[in-house]
Amino acid sequence: MKVAIIMGSDSDLPIMQPAIATLDEFGLEREVVIASAHRTPDKVHEFASGARERGIKVIIAAAGAAAHLPGVVAAYTTLPVIGIPINSTSLGGLDALLSIVQMPAGIPVAAMAINGAKNAALLAIEILAAADAGLTEKLALHRRKMEEEVAQKAVIVANI
Amino acid sequence: MKVAIIMGSDSDLPIMQPAIATLDEFGLEREVVIASAHRTPDKVHEFASGARERGIKVIIAAAGAAAHLPGVVAAYTTLPVIGIPINSTSLGGLDALLSIVQMPAGIPVAAMAINGAKNAALLAIEILAAADAGLTEKLALHRRKMEEEVAQKAVIVANI
Amino acid sequence: MKVAIIMGSDSDLPIMQPAIATLDEFGLEREVVIASAHRTPDKVHEFASGARERGIKVIIAAAGAAAHLPGVVAAYTTLPVIGIPINSTSLGGLDALLSIVQMPAGIPVAAMAINGAKNAALLAIEILAAADAGLTEKLALHRRKMEEEVAQKAVIVANI
Amino acid sequence: MKVAIIMGSDSDLPIMQPAIATLDEFGLEREVVIASAHRTPDKVHEFASGARERGIKVIIAAAGAAAHLPGVVAAYTTLPVIGIPINSTSLGGLDALLSIVQMPAGIPVAAMAINGAKNAALLAIEILAAADAGLTEKLALHRRKMEEEVAQKAVIVANI
Amino acid sequence: MKVAIIMGSDSDLPIMQPAIATLDEFGLEREVVIASAHRTPDKVHEFASGARERGIKVIIAAAGAAAHLPGVVAAYTTLPVIGIPINSTSLGGLDALLSIVQMPAGIPVAAMAINGAKNAALLAIEILAAADAGLTEKLALHRRKMEEEVAQKAVIVANI
Amino acid sequence: MKVAIIMGSDSDLPIMQPAIATLDEFGLEREVVIASAHRTPDKVHEFASGARERGIKVIIAAAGAAAHLPGVVAAYTTLPVIGIPINSTSLGGLDALLSIVQMPAGIPVAAMAINGAKNAALLAIEILAAADAGLTEKLALHRRKMEEEVAQKAVIVANI
Amino acid sequence: MKVAIIMGSDSDLPIMQPAIATLDEFGLEREVVIASAHRTPDKVHEFASGARERGIKVIIAAAGAAAHLPGVVAAYTTLPVIGIPINSTSLGGLDALLSIVQMPAGIPVAAMAINGAKNAALLAIEILAAADAGLTEKLALHRRKMEEEVAQKAVIVANI
Amino acid sequence: MKVAIIMGSDSDLPIMQPAIATLDEFGLEREVVIASAHRTPDKVHEFASGARERGIKVIIAAAGAAAHLPGVVAAYTTLPVIGIPINSTSLGGLDALLSIVQMPAGIPVAAMAINGAKNAALLAIEILAAADAGLTEKLALHRRKMEEEVAQKAVIVANI
Repeated sequence: MKVAIIMGSDSDLPIMQPAIATLDEFGLEREVVIASAHRTPDKVHEFASGARERGIKVIIAAAGAAAHLPGVVAAYTTLPVIGIPINSTSLGGLDALLSIVQMPAGIPVAAMAINGAKNAALLAIEILAAADAGLTEKLALHRRKMEEEVAQKAVIVANI
Repeated sequence: MKVAIIMGSDSDLPIMQPAIATLDEFGLEREVVIASAHRTPDKVHEFASGARERGIKVIIAAAGAAAHLPGVVAAYTTLPVIGIPINSTSLGGLDALLSIVQMPAGIPVAAMAINGAKNAALLAIEILAAADAGLTEKLALHRRKMEEEVAQKAVIVANI
Repeated sequence: MKVAIIMGSDSDLPIMQPAIATLDEFGLEREVVIASAHRTPDKVHEFASGARERGIKVIIAAAGAAAHLPGVVAAYTTLPVIGIPINSTSLGGLDALLSIVQMPAGIPVAAMAINGAKNAALLAIEILAAADAGLTEKLALHRRKMEEEVAQKAVIVANI
Repeated sequence: MKVAIIMGSDSDLPIMQPAIATLDEFGLEREVVIASAHRTPDKVHEFASGARERGIKVIIAAAGAAAHLPGVVAAYTTLPVIGIPINSTSLGGLDALLSIVQMPAGIPVAAMAINGAKNAALLAIEILAAADAGLTEKLALHRRKMEEEVAQKAVIVANI
Repeated sequence: MKVAIIMGSDSDLPIMQPAIATLDEFGLEREVVIASAHRTPDKVHEFASGARERGIKVIIAAAGAAAHLPGVVAAYTTLPVIGIPINSTSLGGLDALLSIVQMPAGIPVAAMAINGAKNAALLAIEILAAADAGLTEKLALHRRKMEEEVAQKAVIVANI
Repeated sequence: MKVAIIMGSDSDLPIMQPAIATLDEFGLEREVVIASAHRTPDKVHEFASGARERGIKVIIAAAGAAAHLPGVVAAYTTLPVIGIPINSTSLGGLDALLSIVQMPAGIPVAAMAINGAKNAALLAIEILAAADAGLTEKLALHRRKMEEEVAQKAVIVANI
Repeated sequence: MKVAIIMGSDSDLPIMQPAIATLDEFGLEREVVIASAHRTPDKVHEFASGARERGIKVIIAAAGAAAHLPGVVAAYTTLPVIGIPINSTSLGGLDALLSIVQMPAGIPVAAMAINGAKNAALLAIEILAAADAGLTEKLALHRRKMEEEVAQKAVIVANI
Repeated sequence: MKVAIIMGSDSDLPIMQPAIATLDEFGLEREVVIASAHRTPDKVHEFASGARERGIKVIIAAAGAAAHLPGVVAAYTTLPVIGIPINSTSLGGLDALLSIVQMPAGIPVAAMAINGAKNAALLAIEILAAADAGLTEKLALHRRKMEEEVAQKAVIVANI
């Protein structure tokens, strides 16, 4: 188990699907956990404080609104924690973004874009790639694939 | 001990002084605690989950920036939790306000104005007054005193 | 009659339904009132200044846009007033949130999340629980039920 | 007594001075009142509901933070009410602006710029000018004077 | 012709309909003009600078986005100008609100709520009522009618 | 080839269509390029640094979210760069607007309104008109046509 | 006279100084004008509609608060208009930025960063460089000079 | 050389000092580079695309205003890039935050709090700790030290 994905509610799952898909595409072991910083704080505590021993290397935590989950997880571990603000209220995700990104000195959370699930997975892979040259190659390949996709679209557009 | 005041950092103390002074003015027992949702999560857990048994009736929690403290406290108790967003970053306290007020359904936090320490104490007193007619009278007196202060200023202004 | 719910317009009623349902679920007496701080100020005055004598212990006030209702109610009573900002304009409820939460020192309003009706009811129950051990137990039960709901969802997700 | 200026706190007075000065410059009778929508609601009620009978033609109401004063005054009178959002919190007056301008249909308040005291007086004079040709002339004169001031500055700048 | 309504684009007309309907309901003469501060500046100039002589007493100007129309109209007349920010972009009308309300000292515009067309008409009527006791009575009647509408809704809600 | 339009993704194409149509309407040679500042940085580099030599006179660059494209293009050329913030996230385009407009001293980008594609084309034409009297005439014609369109709508509205 | 700089108030002059200095550094003829869209609208009209005939090629317009000046200038000319939002209120220049950048389709204004005076001059020079190869060279030189300044600072920092 | 710190301007250096100090405290090799995404794009390109080969494991990039530096660096490397929004304009760092955090899918940047330099260093250390058990221990020690600091402050406060 290399990467853990935790989210506060199963309603966040559709937004998080690209993170899961990207980890699977790169062949990484992962676990997906539903636990709420507010409704099941003990479970979050247990999840976060035991993560390193379970072999987790990176944690991805997603939450909307007050969005305390990534910060609470980060309080219980020194593993890298990546936070994804979910757009789940009338404020367009700005509430979740500020709750996640404005962490006090001492406990870092790596904030992604609002609903930025795919990039959370890619950052996790970049972190894991430090000790895995195969992943570095796969990341380079993934970038080239993106480049080609953009290039193909560019060809189509050229005739407009 | 009736009211507990908890704040993430002693740098919040000057902002919180009016809350302490107001509780003292109303003759209420209180405790003041420094504990950080991120730097000392276990202490916050212990503080919040044991509060009811220590005889605490209302908790006032102040925090700036990501401001998870009130929400984390509320996750561990069903006592009323009053949250004060502290203006401690370049965003004027909007970050702390949204982090405190946008709590998910199930775990309420009563948000005050940014830096609104005095009102947190007054709300705590209003809550305690339900079971204490003397406090209700003192609250009425406090309102009349405020009215008189405004009236005195009005007299001075009338000659402008 | 323990809890009063007041809202500025019957168009706020669907948003407020979870507050009513939660109070009913906890078996609390409640009244629901439509009165506008701007269109029927005398009725609001009468409602608020007579609330304590009618046996009301907590007031929940919901309003959108300029959202003066909670603050105006609070001006006429020392009962705890819980304010719910309603998302009823193109600003996503930020207008109502700031109007409700930024109360001046002296007259507190306990602000909930935008459209946060359920938490208003829960906070009211937490306040009433101070003098009612049965409510404290029911609140603990409600928390456990929420925990179980999250846990059940977690089980389903574990197979993803 | 033609124009009434009401403000929630004497701390707003320095910001409001240009309104008073402008009314004096145009030779208009005016009264200056300190009364708070939250701390002295009955006084505001009395002030607003009796304004027309006292001969007031226009009301200027200034307030910061939750800034309910202009809206509460407008609820009790059909005289034109001009609202001035005061910058008195860490949010730069945005809170007061939204509280004042986002009035619900039925009860208008004419919002000025944040701290825009002088324009409140000018708008009051424009309203009074409808029934006073002398004021219309004075307004035209005032505009020409402003034009000249800009023109003089332009001359100085031309040599840069 | 007492009241002029000017808007930058015919796409603003549906939002402005309640202003027209309210003026008609009060029996006021009015004109409706489409002219753009940016696309037909000369027409706006002509409209505004000739308004007083055409017998106009109050001008209502609506605009979205950069929303210069009310301010440009106000620059050419000392009649009271009421500005309505239209929600016509992805910023929810905040752009238009700030463009209209933040007028510099010297040239007032009375800002209404975003899309607040009805209140613009009511404020215009309040201004005209200064010289027309019949309008004052009609305004009082209108307030009572609103009160009754709220009261009727309150009766229905009472059974919930 | 006079004007180049570059955008980060083909999903921006519908928003950019009015820019293309306007350039075509004015008879200007143009190229349309898809290239991403983040996914194909080398292509953007090549595009921008070679633009002047390919005969490009003005560059229009559109991007949403972090919206680095216009700034990155501007870093590699001293041709005028016009930036269009695309509304492509839950923040209504405010993110793209600030990313594009807040350029540091030394490297200018001319920011248009959110989704303001047509104006980007018109500004490009105004720039090219400096060396092409025919374009100046066409621009004047285009303004007159807009004026007439507004005038026609005004006629229809006059009967409301 | 190649470039005109217009600003609403001489209080904007210190912010605009870098624009003047940059134009002088590039040896460009320029004029500096104080005229207000609101206080001297006729002067602005005259300035803008006569600019092309006076030989002006680009207009730089700076304004704060409601910041109508750039848009009003653009309404009267098809010359390129560059707008600079000035930070002159408690909203940090966001009001001026939105007023300047959110122009409706048909009348473009090229918005710069808040207080971004230097870039306005550089964009004006980039526009003029289309017909002046000497300016293109000077722009390239200016870029190299900036590069060297950054490089020198980098050397100092390298020893930290 | 393990960690590279890059910033757009030497004026960002005081804000970045805690990142440098923290890396030094943990005994990590680091380099400090000044290079601007806009003024020295080629240097940034060279820096980022050669980083992995120079042995860099993590990149910390700080920038204010349009703040393109972290995203541009991330476009040229698959190393983990940590972005720090610098508060350098009148918008309190909100501009830099959105520019850094709202990255498009494919190219992640780990956003820190506004001016959050210390946490950037700590996150870099957490990332490096994956392959360095000694760092993991030092991180645990650092947490305990923070806990003790909070505890000591708590003792002092207890007597208030």
